[in-house]
Amino acid sequence: MLNLFYAAHTCALASHIALEEAGADYTLTRISFAGADQRKPDYLKINPKGRVPALVTDRGVLTETPAMLAYIAQSYPQAKLAPLQDPFAFAQAQAFNSYLCSSLHVAHAHRMRGYRWVEADDTHAIEAMKKKVPQSVYDGFALVEQHMLAGPWVLGESYTICDAYLFTLAQWLEADGVDPARLPRVAEHRRRVADRPAVMRAIAAELAA
Amino acid sequence: MLNLFYAAHTCALASHIALEEAGADYTLTRISFAGADQRKPDYLKINPKGRVPALVTDRGVLTETPAMLAYIAQSYPQAKLAPLQDPFAFAQAQAFNSYLCSSLHVAHAHRMRGYRWVEADDTHAIEAMKKKVPQSVYDGFALVEQHMLAGPWVLGESYTICDAYLFTLAQWLEADGVDPARLPRVAEHRRRVADRPAVMRAIAAELAA
Repeated sequence: MLNLFYAAHTCALASHIALEEAGADYTLTRISFAGADQRKPDYLKINPKGRVPALVTDRGVLTETPAMLAYIAQSYPQAKLAPLQDPFAFAQAQAFNSYLCSSLHVAHAHRMRGYRWVEADDTHAIEAMKKKVPQSVYDGFALVEQHMLAGPWVLGESYTICDAYLFTLAQWLEADGVDPARLPRVAEHRRRVADRPAVMRAIAAELAA
Repeated sequence: MLNLFYAAHTCALASHIALEEAGADYTLTRISFAGADQRKPDYLKINPKGRVPALVTDRGVLTETPAMLAYIAQSYPQAKLAPLQDPFAFAQAQAFNSYLCSSLHVAHAHRMRGYRWVEADDTHAIEAMKKKVPQSVYDGFALVEQHMLAGPWVLGESYTICDAYLFTLAQWLEADGVDPARLPRVAEHRRRVADRPAVMRAIAAELAA
């Protein structure tokens, strides 16, 4: 049995959607960032990084969204959530997810988590980071818009884990100060993913918890 | 035939080492960051992100180190560079590489590439980022030291793509202001990887180019 540790409005939604799409048998455990649950000893035993998501499996704990998404796709091959039989196509999926994780999500994180990279009491530097977010997040999504979104889904004709992940990060556009109208293909993709029953179930479950 | 685009002293070394370990047939193309080659139109046609590494294959271009490393491991299974037959173990390898990419490399990047996240002429903010690098890079490696390095190799008894990647980022410790003596297991791992013939060949080729 899988247990997904998540916090609301985080990138954990991508793995949650993938589990729903896969028809996996899993439970959800909510962590409260407001309560700093992620830094409490009980949670640090599960994930010493003090972050979400974490996926508890019978064999141990997995972290890092790109790895969790690939694991879910490989564990439920009948759901066809990644091109598993083709190393090049699989690498393209992984490259997309790695870009979202290491560039797009990182750009976004400078709005709320600037203390990771400067002293928390350096108000000027913290504000300087926040100020750049609309530009850096837009630039990151513009690369997706222009070069990485084959259409109708990220990799082309088949819906994959990449779509769940892009949708998740695209939830944050407005809060990051980016007008989705400047990214029409990303915005249309976001609407298309939002209409999927598995996505609606995942979002409803997070809000209900 | 594969062609690896790299720049000296970058994370491209990880993929270069993996290609050497795999016994792959490939060529190397050096990009000069000093000459800003990565932002020139010819290179942007290969990789619109304007970054290295990029691996040109017969089927198209792959980017993002974690994806490239997994692709090399899957393309040369006889080299046993990843636990390919076990989705959980493969996900652990991917999680490790994803952490290096999105947390450790990102912490390091705040020393030289702060302009990605604040305005380039904001001297105070740029300097504030540089100042935090010894701490944030140390913290990232300390998690590796304490929780992610099974020993003697990252995943345990078998050398994998994770070792090539950790070794590559550990090259930067001193320049990032971190004393390797504070990370004895990471430092020992670095020495162990440095002794591998494939690693020596890759480094020699980069220096000779």
